[in-house]
Amino acid sequence: MKSISVNISSAKVDLCKPDPIQVLAFDVFGTVVDWHGSIARKVTQLGIQVDPSAFATAWRAGYKPAMARVRSGELPWTRIDDLHRLILEQVLLDFKINSLSEAQKKDLNLVWHRLAAWPDTVLGLQQLKSKYTIVTLSNGNLGLLAEMAKHAGLPWDLILSAEVFRHYKPDPETYLGVAATFDIAPEQVMLVATHKDDLLAAHKLGLKTAFVERPFEYGPNHSRQDMQVETWTDFHAKDFIDLARQLGVN
Amino acid sequence: MKSISVNISSAKVDLCKPDPIQVLAFDVFGTVVDWHGSIARKVTQLGIQVDPSAFATAWRAGYKPAMARVRSGELPWTRIDDLHRLILEQVLLDFKINSLSEAQKKDLNLVWHRLAAWPDTVLGLQQLKSKYTIVTLSNGNLGLLAEMAKHAGLPWDLILSAEVFRHYKPDPETYLGVAATFDIAPEQVMLVATHKDDLLAAHKLGLKTAFVERPFEYGPNHSRQDMQVETWTDFHAKDFIDLARQLGVN
Repeated sequence: MKSISVNISSAKVDLCKPDPIQVLAFDVFGTVVDWHGSIARKVTQLGIQVDPSAFATAWRAGYKPAMARVRSGELPWTRIDDLHRLILEQVLLDFKINSLSEAQKKDLNLVWHRLAAWPDTVLGLQQLKSKYTIVTLSNGNLGLLAEMAKHAGLPWDLILSAEVFRHYKPDPETYLGVAATFDIAPEQVMLVATHKDDLLAAHKLGLKTAFVERPFEYGPNHSRQDMQVETWTDFHAKDFIDLARQLGVN
Repeated sequence: MKSISVNISSAKVDLCKPDPIQVLAFDVFGTVVDWHGSIARKVTQLGIQVDPSAFATAWRAGYKPAMARVRSGELPWTRIDDLHRLILEQVLLDFKINSLSEAQKKDLNLVWHRLAAWPDTVLGLQQLKSKYTIVTLSNGNLGLLAEMAKHAGLPWDLILSAEVFRHYKPDPETYLGVAATFDIAPEQVMLVATHKDDLLAAHKLGLKTAFVERPFEYGPNHSRQDMQVETWTDFHAKDFIDLARQLGVN
């Protein structure tokens, strides 16, 4: 499928008008980094007797329900690091793994700080950074995102997080918070993500949106069924280098 | 005075023990960038009939009183961008300057986003970044600090601001907030600053401290009288490269 680079929207970039987009805000887990592959590798290294792919999928599956408990007010503000740990305890129970020490569990939880970038990520971000201000807009906490950036060489201009806004995506405070941070209009911010629910929430608030295909987000043996082009997104890119090309950067 | 590099404290770094400092948190205005020279140059370029140095000094002099109004609760949370603009209006009145358009005033206010780094700043930060996580801890707002970093090439691992903690230095929430962000102890954070009041507040909360001489912070014709070594600081450095040397990095 590599040769099919669908782009119904780049024609919207009118070269005669100044490009109104100033800030690209990136979703991180899945869009910038490969959580599934990174966790599966870590689990394999730990030598736990479990299907690494299933373990990664289960850990990630607890993510939205855990955030929903914060968003609803059932839990007070809780960082992703702590939510990841809560979910991990349940996943270890579900997979009947009781061989890990506290130190091993703590270290395993930090795998989220050291997720590997997709192959195109660093070069694509460097290209996009030459024209735009590039920031994160992630539900990951600041410490996690900073350590990830240092580890993977992600050249962010600014790390923004749900932790700054004390709201998790898709709460409006997050998307509008990016625009407010830079004192610009929502339509001068473009969210870049591989998740259509995230993009749709941003779109409804007036942000520009770019969908990036990450066909292997859930692992090489899981085929994502939501790669189709949507009429309401502004860009649909194969990867960050393709997005840079569509934006006239490289 | 350049040859005198006083350092009574680097002996505290015991090479046989793991270095407990993990994060270096930098004050920005004056420590990392030259606000006085940058503003004076901008005022000169604007062609305002005024002593550029006196104008820069007056603008900066309004900074602490303005923040004090926020810290006391007299003003609600207000970003530095907006405080700078409030102060600017008063300074323009005081200097009897009424020739600037709204667009010119807005542009002048943004000079704080484009302050020039001291000559040693970028190389020193690059060296320190090879061993430590380097972050800002500034009263400047996130958008200001991000634009400054992009403009001056400051390689921060994370931009932290009073805006994240909704408290201005020297409120404890700021210094302790850095440690909390990285889930480490206060003594694993070292504040790097050229202002002893800032350092003393951090020291009292258990952070490590490094004073950096910036003899020309208030301009080449103003001689700072507070360059003496203090017994309570952990390091006293001529500049960032000297600090890196004392920390065993370069």
